[in-house]
Amino acid sequence: MIVLSETKKTTIVLFSGDYDKAMAAYIIANGAAAYDHEVTIFHTFWGLNALRKEEQVPVKKGFLEKMFGKMMPRGADKMGISKMNMAGMGPKMIKHVIQKHNAMTLPQLIELAKEQDIKLVACTMTMDLLGLDQAELLDGVDYAGVAAYLADAQDGNVNLFI
Amino acid sequence: MIVLSETKKTTIVLFSGDYDKAMAAYIIANGAAAYDHEVTIFHTFWGLNALRKEEQVPVKKGFLEKMFGKMMPRGADKMGISKMNMAGMGPKMIKHVIQKHNAMTLPQLIELAKEQDIKLVACTMTMDLLGLDQAELLDGVDYAGVAAYLADAQDGNVNLFI
Amino acid sequence: MIVLSETKKTTIVLFSGDYDKAMAAYIIANGAAAYDHEVTIFHTFWGLNALRKEEQVPVKKGFLEKMFGKMMPRGADKMGISKMNMAGMGPKMIKHVIQKHNAMTLPQLIELAKEQDIKLVACTMTMDLLGLDQAELLDGVDYAGVAAYLADAQDGNVNLFI
Repeated sequence: MIVLSETKKTTIVLFSGDYDKAMAAYIIANGAAAYDHEVTIFHTFWGLNALRKEEQVPVKKGFLEKMFGKMMPRGADKMGISKMNMAGMGPKMIKHVIQKHNAMTLPQLIELAKEQDIKLVACTMTMDLLGLDQAELLDGVDYAGVAAYLADAQDGNVNLFI
Repeated sequence: MIVLSETKKTTIVLFSGDYDKAMAAYIIANGAAAYDHEVTIFHTFWGLNALRKEEQVPVKKGFLEKMFGKMMPRGADKMGISKMNMAGMGPKMIKHVIQKHNAMTLPQLIELAKEQDIKLVACTMTMDLLGLDQAELLDGVDYAGVAAYLADAQDGNVNLFI
Repeated sequence: MIVLSETKKTTIVLFSGDYDKAMAAYIIANGAAAYDHEVTIFHTFWGLNALRKEEQVPVKKGFLEKMFGKMMPRGADKMGISKMNMAGMGPKMIKHVIQKHNAMTLPQLIELAKEQDIKLVACTMTMDLLGLDQAELLDGVDYAGVAAYLADAQDGNVNLFI
């Protein structure tokens, strides 16, 4: 067995815009950070919604970009769940059991990720496609493309697509 | 090239509660075990349903936990599929073609996984959230949290999130 | 730090039949190839639809296989999206913004993948289940099973399931 002294690395592509899947991503990421991994979450497509600010930010947009902006949830707390969404009742149930069991909500998990210096990256190419502006995303987010993701992931110990 | 003599490792996070996705997870896992990998499937969120016993097990639960318990499929055979579920017709079609082509059903794939000593782990944190009790899950299942998953995955050759 | 001189490897299991998820898979794959990785995309279940020819190919099939064949999209351009499909309007919007931003459509990304010598593999076991014939898939596709996938993935630097 060869022991490498390097820091272990975890990278997660968060593609999904579902509350439960984003929870899973952030729980694994926070666990890995607590385990002293260098951790990156690369938010792309619908996963970008987890990084949106709750309030509306005035940004000039084309028609399609405005539509996407309106239809997509504004921030982690507004995201639906992947199963049993039941006209929005599902997320309420999930948040209810989270509270009851003293577990962390998605916004709290994102807060913790920042405190643990997890690198939160927004994919610039899909931001462009969906018409999202940096002003609409949380502070402290990094901006990069697929090349930067691959530079991290190719040395990653745990690489997941969620 | 450096040849490491260690056993190769495959870890799969099974998050999905879809019959077809769980099939893919168990086919890859059984393939990896046949290939002499050490294999772990970490069942979390809706993936826990693949490990539920078919019969109802009397467990005291709160209201929300009872609702989740009722709404979620009881065992692998009851799970829906991710595409073309068509009011439940999809799973029947899939099972029909599986039978016709002498392929293995999901319950058979889970049986094979046990025979091949694949470690089937249930995520205790999400069991707690969804109100699932150990008595409701198949025998021979291990119970652990995200730290145990990461301990396996950080040395994994193939790590997937399904 | 140990520097290995070997070529890096990226393997992607494309399970999903969604346009946007397949786009993400092919963007990462093309990025990795540009980064000099050896890249394999293993198409299984609904991901096989990305490899279907657009025209109908006369193949003798059983009833169920014919039904699957009719219900599943014929080729990348016909695939729906995972979120906000809105009776088919979603894919049109996505293609519209792709065009507007001079990004590549999924068929163009598949073309580029071929030019970059990315290995496009169709899973023979699920082709059999869904009743897909080699004559129905694009030219230049390889045919293999889970063992071949694992042989690639166990030495992979970046292994993803999409």
